Amino acid sequence: MRSFAACLTLITMVSAASLAQAQQPAAPAAPAALSQKQMMMVERLQANALQSRLGLDVLESLTTEIGPRLAGSPDEARARDWAMAKLKALGFENVRIEPFTIPYWHRLVENAAITSPAPQKLYVTALGGSGPTPVGGLEAQVIGFPDVASLRAAPEAVVKGKIVFINERTVRTQDGSGYGVGVVKRAQCQSVAQSKGAAACVIRSVGTDSHRFPHAGGSARSRDGANLANAAVSAPDADQIARLLARGPVRLRLEIGVETKENAPSGNVIAEIRGATRPDEVVVIGGHLDSWDLGTGALDDGAGVAIATAAAKLIKDLPMRPARTLRIVLWGSEETGLHGGRAYAAQHKPEAAKHIVAAESDFGAGRVWRLETDFGPMAAPYALALHQALAPLAINPGPMQSGGGPDVGPLKELGIPVVELSQDGTDYFDYHHTPDDTFDKIDPAALAQNIAAFATFAYLAADSDWDFRAGR
Amino acid sequence: MRSFAACLTLITMVSAASLAQAQQPAAPAAPAALSQKQMMMVERLQANALQSRLGLDVLESLTTEIGPRLAGSPDEARARDWAMAKLKALGFENVRIEPFTIPYWHRLVENAAITSPAPQKLYVTALGGSGPTPVGGLEAQVIGFPDVASLRAAPEAVVKGKIVFINERTVRTQDGSGYGVGVVKRAQCQSVAQSKGAAACVIRSVGTDSHRFPHAGGSARSRDGANLANAAVSAPDADQIARLLARGPVRLRLEIGVETKENAPSGNVIAEIRGATRPDEVVVIGGHLDSWDLGTGALDDGAGVAIATAAAKLIKDLPMRPARTLRIVLWGSEETGLHGGRAYAAQHKPEAAKHIVAAESDFGAGRVWRLETDFGPMAAPYALALHQALAPLAINPGPMQSGGGPDVGPLKELGIPVVELSQDGTDYFDYHHTPDDTFDKIDPAALAQNIAAFATFAYLAADSDWDFRAGR
Repeated sequence: MRSFAACLTLITMVSAASLAQAQQPAAPAAPAALSQKQMMMVERLQANALQSRLGLDVLESLTTEIGPRLAGSPDEARARDWAMAKLKALGFENVRIEPFTIPYWHRLVENAAITSPAPQKLYVTALGGSGPTPVGGLEAQVIGFPDVASLRAAPEAVVKGKIVFINERTVRTQDGSGYGVGVVKRAQCQSVAQSKGAAACVIRSVGTDSHRFPHAGGSARSRDGANLANAAVSAPDADQIARLLARGPVRLRLEIGVETKENAPSGNVIAEIRGATRPDEVVVIGGHLDSWDLGTGALDDGAGVAIATAAAKLIKDLPMRPARTLRIVLWGSEETGLHGGRAYAAQHKPEAAKHIVAAESDFGAGRVWRLETDFGPMAAPYALALHQALAPLAINPGPMQSGGGPDVGPLKELGIPVVELSQDGTDYFDYHHTPDDTFDKIDPAALAQNIAAFATFAYLAADSDWDFRAGR
Repeated sequence: MRSFAACLTLITMVSAASLAQAQQPAAPAAPAALSQKQMMMVERLQANALQSRLGLDVLESLTTEIGPRLAGSPDEARARDWAMAKLKALGFENVRIEPFTIPYWHRLVENAAITSPAPQKLYVTALGGSGPTPVGGLEAQVIGFPDVASLRAAPEAVVKGKIVFINERTVRTQDGSGYGVGVVKRAQCQSVAQSKGAAACVIRSVGTDSHRFPHAGGSARSRDGANLANAAVSAPDADQIARLLARGPVRLRLEIGVETKENAPSGNVIAEIRGATRPDEVVVIGGHLDSWDLGTGALDDGAGVAIATAAAKLIKDLPMRPARTLRIVLWGSEETGLHGGRAYAAQHKPEAAKHIVAAESDFGAGRVWRLETDFGPMAAPYALALHQALAPLAINPGPMQSGGGPDVGPLKELGIPVVELSQDGTDYFDYHHTPDDTFDKIDPAALAQNIAAFATFAYLAADSDWDFRAGR
């Protein structure tokens, strides 16, 4: 999680929706009535989710037995094998891999140091899509900017030959909106700096912590062809550079070595509970299977894999299968460009009309605090019914203009309704894309609440005739 | 901070003293009366300390302009130059370096990975005194132990040729006593494992955090000649190894390269406020100037340097200089074997009787919560007077069997009374000896309270005729 574009979209939507909410009276319709069976099943699912260890076990297994799983790497292939075995062992149907290929990017060497005036090592990581420096590195004077806009406004003459350093901080927010703002420099420094003849880009990590971990993440290379060396330093290292810049000239050495190749293998792993009466109607829940390579991807997005898998297993264990098909999609290669989400949408475009609704978990495993939807105007009663069913888990109604998330974004573009069960992301960007994204960062109780929420939503969507497009 | 031996001594003493306190009625004597002048000066010092930025500025300057400063390295030499300039600029007298030499140890290469069953990089650091592995590293099966005692009890046959892994956790405590227990494995794994023919030692970091930083620190090499490769992994990495060991055999690859040399240059930096009436009587306050090389040593022990310097400067700025000489000692090469503390004690042994009392700050910059002393039985009124003067800073009376701390330990051995203004170390071992020990971890308000406490103690000791040895 998350692409830059998806985030900007999200921010715009959240803002618009908040305004809309503030200006309108409360919901215009009564909720759809839940049948006694639905109410009983929801109660059972929530009780079982809150006491089950399955999600935690799935997440422990993935992060321990596979560990890091970079998009397009042999580690991601091992993760697909793991997922196939796990989903089959849990008794799901139609377990399969839908393969695709991606442009592969892999860090080989990354190091940086202040060479003058106070020589010291920096904690740095290459950003996805970074070009290499010359072997042995490059050394240059640093020019600091508060943000990309200032870099854009700077004359070429003052940037040329220098290492551009952007020291913008990331704002801590519950809904992740601080990331959408902070990530602009990660996406744009490379191309703007390259156009002005800079030697390299070094940004303050897009993260809210003050630990000495740089935060990895993709940059814009694949979109605009920029190939300048592009790296992130940890927040304390950025502070150090800024303090030295306040005293006078600063020089850095930066070495980055990368490996790239075209058409590296990736794939989405899919499993189902076939619907009892309308199996061609599909409800999608999922998370992405790949992770950045520095940590073991527990929060991003082992949690999503575990939440979708455990929620579906709880539904599978109900006395009767739902009317519609519930499909788990574990997307591949999200981090390096939403490749899995795009591949799934392209491959399943012919069945788009039969996709009832889609939801993913790709924002860690903090407690779900809000349900967002993007249903048609006549489908508001279904949103209200979902809110009622989720209320015992302490989940509020949220805006009705959900973006869906990075991997379901391409499904939304096909007109498929989406739902977001918004995790509390207050701490998410302390760990996101760092070596510190490991299993110990998971709160088992919050993970269980997530599973209860996803199971509730997925069950009600799958075992009903609700049409979330109604009135569009 | 802190040597293993000093810590064990400290624990023993704290325990004994706590018992003694519990069994005895409250203090047997009335406090020594403070003169009106003393009371006025203490009030002024505390008020000035709490609003001064000097300590923070000193610490910012050291950590920014020098950064890491490994014992015996050119960086430590730069730190001595920095200290000379800073102490002279602040107007202290007799600013000088007292040089000595040390055996130098320096990490060149350190990396580790799980090679089987789930290949992934580990976050590892070589422990001070570690020997090298063969170039390119060694690879071996892991054998896990809960602590050194279990390793000691294991048959040679099961250890031989394997990488010993000790997964003992460090307990979080306010007074740092958890470190004394936890550090045993760091000090002893190497020699015990080597005696059983192990391939290497890997310990769980001695630290209370769950971030992905390994904690550096000295091992016992200099004492017993063991030269096995000896390294620490971060807590999440230790958890990962343990989870894999629970599933079956685990193999690691470990590569460590080190540089050592004899007689590397180090030194203590000394400055004074000469006493007005009894200048040959000396009160010592200080901290150590060196740091481990991974971070910039803000907590360990830039804070001690800043606290001692700022406290002395506040005393220097009083209308009249104290009766006795106040001496700042910034010890060199503490981390790699208390070299500076030992050198100072050896060089100043002839004046030991004229050393009135000594105190150091080497436990971060958490708020001082307790005053410990080791005064003679007839000097209890002076301890009580100090307690009264420190009470406005929310500092409790503590045990009267202080060990003093690592660098004043050798002075205590010469019979010189010592005082400890105990910092709250609850969070100290989250950062200790990691890359994360950086300036942003300093709480300015707590640092100011430390300076107020040290200024209060140092002023009363220097501008009085109190004999802390009384009754010995």
